[in-house]
Amino acid sequence: METSILIGSPSPRAQQVRNFLKQNNLQAWIAWRPEELLMLSGYLPFWGASFLIHFADAEPVLFVPQIEPRDHIPAGLRVQEYPWGDLKCSDPYSVLVSAIGTELVHARLSAEKVGMNPGSSRIALPIQAAEQIPIPEGFAEQLSALTAKPDAQRQSAFADLYLRKTAEEIQAIRLANRVANVGLDAFFENLQPGISEADIAAAVESAIYRQIDRDGIFHSRGWAMVQSGPNSADAGRFNRSTGRRLENGDLVLIELATCVNGYWSDLTRTAAVGSARAEVAQILGLVRDAQQAAIDGVSAGVSAGYIDALAREKIAAQGLSSFFTHHTGHHVGFRYHDPGFLIAPGVSAKLEPGMMITIEPGAYVPERGGGARIEDNVLVTESGHEVLSRMEGSKRT
Amino acid sequence: METSILIGSPSPRAQQVRNFLKQNNLQAWIAWRPEELLMLSGYLPFWGASFLIHFADAEPVLFVPQIEPRDHIPAGLRVQEYPWGDLKCSDPYSVLVSAIGTELVHARLSAEKVGMNPGSSRIALPIQAAEQIPIPEGFAEQLSALTAKPDAQRQSAFADLYLRKTAEEIQAIRLANRVANVGLDAFFENLQPGISEADIAAAVESAIYRQIDRDGIFHSRGWAMVQSGPNSADAGRFNRSTGRRLENGDLVLIELATCVNGYWSDLTRTAAVGSARAEVAQILGLVRDAQQAAIDGVSAGVSAGYIDALAREKIAAQGLSSFFTHHTGHHVGFRYHDPGFLIAPGVSAKLEPGMMITIEPGAYVPERGGGARIEDNVLVTESGHEVLSRMEGSKRT
Repeated sequence: METSILIGSPSPRAQQVRNFLKQNNLQAWIAWRPEELLMLSGYLPFWGASFLIHFADAEPVLFVPQIEPRDHIPAGLRVQEYPWGDLKCSDPYSVLVSAIGTELVHARLSAEKVGMNPGSSRIALPIQAAEQIPIPEGFAEQLSALTAKPDAQRQSAFADLYLRKTAEEIQAIRLANRVANVGLDAFFENLQPGISEADIAAAVESAIYRQIDRDGIFHSRGWAMVQSGPNSADAGRFNRSTGRRLENGDLVLIELATCVNGYWSDLTRTAAVGSARAEVAQILGLVRDAQQAAIDGVSAGVSAGYIDALAREKIAAQGLSSFFTHHTGHHVGFRYHDPGFLIAPGVSAKLEPGMMITIEPGAYVPERGGGARIEDNVLVTESGHEVLSRMEGSKRT
Repeated sequence: METSILIGSPSPRAQQVRNFLKQNNLQAWIAWRPEELLMLSGYLPFWGASFLIHFADAEPVLFVPQIEPRDHIPAGLRVQEYPWGDLKCSDPYSVLVSAIGTELVHARLSAEKVGMNPGSSRIALPIQAAEQIPIPEGFAEQLSALTAKPDAQRQSAFADLYLRKTAEEIQAIRLANRVANVGLDAFFENLQPGISEADIAAAVESAIYRQIDRDGIFHSRGWAMVQSGPNSADAGRFNRSTGRRLENGDLVLIELATCVNGYWSDLTRTAAVGSARAEVAQILGLVRDAQQAAIDGVSAGVSAGYIDALAREKIAAQGLSSFFTHHTGHHVGFRYHDPGFLIAPGVSAKLEPGMMITIEPGAYVPERGGGARIEDNVLVTESGHEVLSRMEGSKRT
């Protein structure tokens, strides 16, 4: 993934966005989801209430709340504040809509030249992650007067922008995976009889939070979900930590979402406390084999359905196919789950260099009292693939 | 807050909802936000993709994803699953809309008798908190064919249901505050020179997570944001933890959101490392006085603006009013920030028994290198108020 960036030439991401606008006959795009801002401008909002006008041919304008931190706003954006958080302003969004309208008038852009992603499904969390983003009811309607009518084909083309990560983005996702592995180290260190699932998860999240201020990290948060023994047999349906205490021979599964500076890693590990009980040892070995088979198959030009089948056939060969209840993977990086095609049965979409996917087969067998899933983040390269989430020096994958 | 519940009589919450439906000429309400489900049925969703039909005169129906955990669904709900999470189903929401429609037909309810809260602004997080809820684009439009036209007055009446907490809900919020105080204990224990803001925050969140499985707690998560020294002077605008290491004499502020079983506490403490530097000691003392003055004034019948003024006048008397940049409080309990009137200048709405509000004045003075805020959760009672967030035995408020 070598890239050479010429001074003054657009970055690979800027070029992707420029092509998208051109192909869709647009002169600007208005973005507000945290991951859209990150992708279009490199900026991760704190409150989640920042808005970007990304012009095809002019400097982008970023509207931020008056009370937004400014120290991580990248260069190359014209920043305007609006009175969100001002005690004296009862309706900051009206001020914002008016200011956005003024910018578009100055740029002489009529509504049909300006695109936007309506709705608010499955959004990444901003830095302030304890509450979903307070975009008010009806705000999309206010903005819609300034933008083109929603168009399914255009929305789909915008979602495609998530699929091909640039070299710079890959480095950021690599860092998220490195931090996630610090959390996984805490998982393996704590894998002892008597400790509770919640205690392990707490230790993992804590280790991830404490990475702040290392290697340029200003935001680091993990969501660890640990399921042990019989609870691991539920991990094909949901992931949560309970107070159950680990016992020797248990399988223990950790699902771990990690966000570092806005970029996401999505990992799963399953390991035994001591030696796995005989009934579950086979499950773990089989899932390892299935995952490796799928990873080995990842390369540009193969279909998502083919990769899924590589894992699924391994599990079927041992008679456990009915216990592998979910897809084999999904795109990842701008969110815990990026949009785009799934790595799932029958999906004909093909892998391309720059795509970042999870490979996460599993088998969850209640009658044996255990389940396993192993998940890595895999980059499709020109020459094959690279597993970003396995760290040198760590044998505990 | 003594209540006696007669067998067979509706709970106080059920009575509130019944009155709301009657006054708004409705026979049913469709809810899906995590906090709406919690309020209407006592159920906190795991994925956030559960839907409730709350009938005025019949058993409520809860639609849950096929892969939703079932062990915390309360009695008294008819549970139906829909194929969200089923690998073989590409459009579970169409199945869901059809099933909701069938229920409404069986109940002989035309759309104008069925209400719903459209939009998706400022929603509480479900148990799975690493990603906002994946309600698809356009789903509200699909549901809108089954429900009455949005009506601002009716939406406002629904939002009013958040305001008056029942005895049972107060107990749940009390528990959230007890757990939050376990986190605060970790904050005070770690308040030493040399430790980083992020390290303290990680310890606090970890202590909160580890409360799972005690006292009926199945979900416990904290979001701790620690700001020290000069960073504490930013805490009127945003709260985040950095790698800054504490120094003797610093003011250190922790903003802490805590969710226990779906009920929320929102607390802030400010304390000094060792003895506060002289320039900032006055700020902390003043904020303490202002907060206590406001809390002392809380009682049924007084206006929110009056409470705000009690705090604001104390701070103005010391010439620091321009450094108290935000409101004095807000409703809390079903979310980190409940809807409803603010405790802010000029607000004429009056406090009533059962309301739960925050009291959180602050002063943030960059030129002195520090800021302070102290925030408690205060219940309005028949005879005055109760501070739910100060624990017996803890002197460190």
